[in-house]
Amino acid sequence: MQLTVRPLAIDTFRENTLLLSRDCRALRPERLAGVRKVEIQVGGRTLLAAVVICDDPALVGPGEAGLTQPAFRRLGVAAGTPVHVAPAPPPAGAAALRAKIGGATLTDVQIGDVIHDLAEHRWSDMEISAFLVACASFMTPEETLALTRAMANAGRRLSWNRPLVADKHCIGGVPGNRTSLIVAPVAAAHGLLTPKTSSRAITSPAGTADTMEVLARVDLDEDEMRAVVERCGGCIVWGGRVNLSPVDDVLISVERPLSLDTPEQMVASILSKKMAAGSTHLLLDLPVGPGAKMRDPEAARHLRKLFEFVADRVGLKVEVVETDGSQPVGRGVGPALEARDVLAVLRGEAGAPADLAEKSVRLAGRLIELDPEVAGGAGAARARELIASGAALRKLEAIAEAQGPSPLAGGLTPGSRVCEIPAARDGTVTGVDCLRIARIARLAGAPTDPGAGLDLLKRRGERVRKGEPLYRLHAEDPADFALACEAAGEDPGFALA
Amino acid sequence: MQLTVRPLAIDTFRENTLLLSRDCRALRPERLAGVRKVEIQVGGRTLLAAVVICDDPALVGPGEAGLTQPAFRRLGVAAGTPVHVAPAPPPAGAAALRAKIGGATLTDVQIGDVIHDLAEHRWSDMEISAFLVACASFMTPEETLALTRAMANAGRRLSWNRPLVADKHCIGGVPGNRTSLIVAPVAAAHGLLTPKTSSRAITSPAGTADTMEVLARVDLDEDEMRAVVERCGGCIVWGGRVNLSPVDDVLISVERPLSLDTPEQMVASILSKKMAAGSTHLLLDLPVGPGAKMRDPEAARHLRKLFEFVADRVGLKVEVVETDGSQPVGRGVGPALEARDVLAVLRGEAGAPADLAEKSVRLAGRLIELDPEVAGGAGAARARELIASGAALRKLEAIAEAQGPSPLAGGLTPGSRVCEIPAARDGTVTGVDCLRIARIARLAGAPTDPGAGLDLLKRRGERVRKGEPLYRLHAEDPADFALACEAAGEDPGFALA
Repeated sequence: MQLTVRPLAIDTFRENTLLLSRDCRALRPERLAGVRKVEIQVGGRTLLAAVVICDDPALVGPGEAGLTQPAFRRLGVAAGTPVHVAPAPPPAGAAALRAKIGGATLTDVQIGDVIHDLAEHRWSDMEISAFLVACASFMTPEETLALTRAMANAGRRLSWNRPLVADKHCIGGVPGNRTSLIVAPVAAAHGLLTPKTSSRAITSPAGTADTMEVLARVDLDEDEMRAVVERCGGCIVWGGRVNLSPVDDVLISVERPLSLDTPEQMVASILSKKMAAGSTHLLLDLPVGPGAKMRDPEAARHLRKLFEFVADRVGLKVEVVETDGSQPVGRGVGPALEARDVLAVLRGEAGAPADLAEKSVRLAGRLIELDPEVAGGAGAARARELIASGAALRKLEAIAEAQGPSPLAGGLTPGSRVCEIPAARDGTVTGVDCLRIARIARLAGAPTDPGAGLDLLKRRGERVRKGEPLYRLHAEDPADFALACEAAGEDPGFALA
Repeated sequence: MQLTVRPLAIDTFRENTLLLSRDCRALRPERLAGVRKVEIQVGGRTLLAAVVICDDPALVGPGEAGLTQPAFRRLGVAAGTPVHVAPAPPPAGAAALRAKIGGATLTDVQIGDVIHDLAEHRWSDMEISAFLVACASFMTPEETLALTRAMANAGRRLSWNRPLVADKHCIGGVPGNRTSLIVAPVAAAHGLLTPKTSSRAITSPAGTADTMEVLARVDLDEDEMRAVVERCGGCIVWGGRVNLSPVDDVLISVERPLSLDTPEQMVASILSKKMAAGSTHLLLDLPVGPGAKMRDPEAARHLRKLFEFVADRVGLKVEVVETDGSQPVGRGVGPALEARDVLAVLRGEAGAPADLAEKSVRLAGRLIELDPEVAGGAGAARARELIASGAALRKLEAIAEAQGPSPLAGGLTPGSRVCEIPAARDGTVTGVDCLRIARIARLAGAPTDPGAGLDLLKRRGERVRKGEPLYRLHAEDPADFALACEAAGEDPGFALA
């Protein structure tokens, strides 16, 4: 049936929602309740949406299709445009979903059906959740491979026409581990093509993109990104604008609230993004430690082998480096505080955090050794040299300038509300809980407030006296400040012995 | 923070949704996006809701809490009432959910946490889906028992102070299998207490409650139901108004769109409702056949044993009867057509469907033999006698009168649009596909239009000639009529050999 588009000033976030008048008889909206979606068609395009009923003719009339903000934006037509609305046919991947719930191993074709549905937003959150949990209970390496391929092919694919396109990625979970902002400029300064797309924080106090945004604009589209890479040999942009492996974002939107983080989904997520970004070589940082994502060496080994299996089949050279995930890296946790650490390392400042510098040199060295001209074992020295000479700093500055000025007010300034968290007794620091530190930094307002977060003053192995500060909290918002101080007071995340 | 309630003319069906102005700074609504729910508190009550942002001050102002219809109704306060709104604390069952996804066997306490959350609507559909799929992959009989107990205890518990409270239930899946409307009046006419609560259709063309509603009002509350049972010794009401095992309805709302129907959830669903209804004895009809829910005898045996295990532990005497599920029962499929069959059997009409009559007598006989006064094997004869004498018909009429007149216009009249579906060739009917017949009857408009559905004219084993009608479709709505005729034309659901 024909309805005319009526935009509504309601933001339903990621969800497409269609408001229909209860008097819209031809569709019998009460029958659509929760059962399935409708398809909105105009020109050659199709948008799927969930239906809600409206009883206020001033909001939505019987001949109107009321579209909430995301749906109106995605449909991309003017108010008053006639559109065709009909119940959506059952999604092609529904049979595959039922099979997976029943414990089946899916074929490449079935996985293709699932990804096709997800790319077209044909599934509800409950269906995505069902798929992910069924996969969490059992998934073969071959299924992970098929999922990775299908995800990479669902969006844009970048191509650089170069035999060596390098990237470095971390599976996450360790606060302050902002090595990418050092490794990428070092590698680019050496001459490696390093078109880095990175993510915003999902559950952490800062993603690489959040931290880079303190220094430069990061929401570049594909053409803008290409221009920066051509000029500088590298970039550090947010991947969200480039539409790489968009199904990954759909899956993450359900994985996040469920705290689902399986090896198979991690491999498919990371490798599909890298394939789509046109990378040929990937260095993967895999932190192992009691508070990290990988808690024991055996699980880390299983994950490494799965990365290697899938990467090999899709033609991506991957090198997995297991690193120390037993405490945060660097001093700062939160976008501005982390960016300050990065600049301190690149500037060779005396107070720069040594662990961040060392880890970055080690990783950048491994990347540099991908260059056939560099002798085995000589990468780390070359990385050190590029930092000491200021070449890496100049590269980061050039990239930042090419990307454009940061849209964030305040930039590198730490949050103005400050409080120090004291040790409850004398002792030696035996561990710093990554999860707890991340949670406290988020409560303080990171990454929404770029200056929010915390500065670690003590590290594992150091002795502290009762009352000495363990770390310094920074916040802008008074309510967030109070919440973070309270949480840090209850359990600061430091183990003393 | 304090906001004032603003009711909105938007019906979000089962979901509680709160619209906040984007300018409602204290809550920073953009942070709540999809991550978690908010708690709305007023007086001693708490309501959980998902948040959506509104940019139209005429719809929701910065100091207002815009509540959609279900949320406003559930909160039960007047427009303009000040309420307290805050982010909801993480649900108690979240840890149990993560453990179950990780493959753990849950303790009674963990299952209690889950059911408590579900009873308070603290989980989103994606979390419920995750729990159900994790349970579908592995669940012990002890977990099923704990789930059943917790579900029964989450709502109202009826008690009848009688040693023998009888019920009869079918696991569903066979169209036209409307034996409850015969068995319950026969048992009540014999003198057994039979307070029957029944369900509306979920995926079938008619539930017992839908069919009874053609004859009488069914949405009785607890007091009304008690009054009918005191007067008539039995009732046939819709369970939804009586708030028995309300968590079951929450789980079904997710199971239905996912087509999830596991033995464990079936047992917990049915037995928790019966416990809550105060039944002491349950006769369970378990149809087995290629198009039924139970396709093979081994699966049926597993289900029977699970029913027996849980029923025994909760003190419910259960008798499971495996019946023929290879084709629909009776002639009519759809509320009015099924009600007509039921009355034909109770009136002893010549054209009454023999299979429905025979199956009802068999089941009613088993129930009657629960009476210590009735000799073993004498139940069926007594059931036959109660039908032949008209006692069962008078009992159904008395119950219908006590429950009140049907709210449905048209009552027993079949849908006025009629079309006959012919056999494509000569042959013998070797099977009638229950799933397909159910689907065609639903497309015709059942159970929304009570007169919609179909009348089977041929059954398994009968010979047909090409062009002879297999069944007669009835519909009211022209679009539904066209869809059902088309579907029946494509595949009528009859196998001929």
